[in-house]
Amino acid sequence: MIYENTTIFDFETTGLDPSYDKIIELALIRIRNGKVVGTLNYLINPETVIPHNITDITGITNDDVCNCPTIKQLLPWMMAIIGDSLLVAHNALFDLTFLDVANQKYRGKSVNNSFIDTRAICIDRFPYESHRLELMCNKYQIRLDGAHRALNDVSATWELLQKLDQEKTVEDYLNKIYYFKKHGVPNWMPEHARIVGL
Amino acid sequence: MIYENTTIFDFETTGLDPSYDKIIELALIRIRNGKVVGTLNYLINPETVIPHNITDITGITNDDVCNCPTIKQLLPWMMAIIGDSLLVAHNALFDLTFLDVANQKYRGKSVNNSFIDTRAICIDRFPYESHRLELMCNKYQIRLDGAHRALNDVSATWELLQKLDQEKTVEDYLNKIYYFKKHGVPNWMPEHARIVGL
Repeated sequence: MIYENTTIFDFETTGLDPSYDKIIELALIRIRNGKVVGTLNYLINPETVIPHNITDITGITNDDVCNCPTIKQLLPWMMAIIGDSLLVAHNALFDLTFLDVANQKYRGKSVNNSFIDTRAICIDRFPYESHRLELMCNKYQIRLDGAHRALNDVSATWELLQKLDQEKTVEDYLNKIYYFKKHGVPNWMPEHARIVGL
Repeated sequence: MIYENTTIFDFETTGLDPSYDKIIELALIRIRNGKVVGTLNYLINPETVIPHNITDITGITNDDVCNCPTIKQLLPWMMAIIGDSLLVAHNALFDLTFLDVANQKYRGKSVNNSFIDTRAICIDRFPYESHRLELMCNKYQIRLDGAHRALNDVSATWELLQKLDQEKTVEDYLNKIYYFKKHGVPNWMPEHARIVGL
């Protein structure tokens, strides 16, 4: 079921606050019946300055994005590609929130797709470790060249999903979000999310 | 100039005849000022049967494309991404002709972008050899995993363009098409093409 009609996606952004920060790169891999049928990867002009620390992490500079399309221009294509597919991301609430903010702003509607958060699965299976994508990939011998570039991250997340599912089915994680109580309840979550405080 | 605003692209198709055969995969890499700012790669439903020999060459099956978008659906996005950029392809007339046929059919207009054919450059530099992409990549130590999948081919063509240009500027090849007289004059070429019979 989880491979039938699925999109793995990732954003790089100017910061952590979806109500203030902007998307600077998107990447997605489109899956049909377990096979990759499409990929889209684009740098995005945030129409604001990219902070130095974000350039250090992502390698994306202001010069790189100055001639690139805006999220307003790319969002209709991105959503046409996504359609009603299952969305998968590592730390999905982060990417879902940015996606929802953009959809509210430019299309006047929320994102209602079902989703799976690969990080939630990792939290259950390795409760006493850091669940960063790089570390989880390392554990499963998944190659991740250049983390924090969106297409590398989604390719790795797609492999991670399959390895986690081979180990033990991940279907129980449909629409499940974990949050750490010490960090407080998230400001936003999808209406159909099943949220679990840890 | 050739790296300022450029798209490297490639199609896989059901055969060699642009008036009859259909596109089954597209890939493009979008360049701004020498840097990759975007990639799009998609399997395409040709709404016809993919011949066995094409599946053998490309690995693309009828099952793979049955839930994929059609070229009619993808073309507007593809052309929005391409814009007025310089088009680069290996054996460009092949891909340009398929692109033009689709544009005539679904958008009622021709493709007028400037272009460079990396194969034309290879023909000049290595007149007595085969100019297949795999062989040219081999000569320049360019890695090409899985030829005849569109995104692998465009990545390799992008590297090949840069190596050829480092060796000696390739700007003279703007809009130049070579054809072999023994194979006859091409049925179609862009209006602005400078065609040279060999």
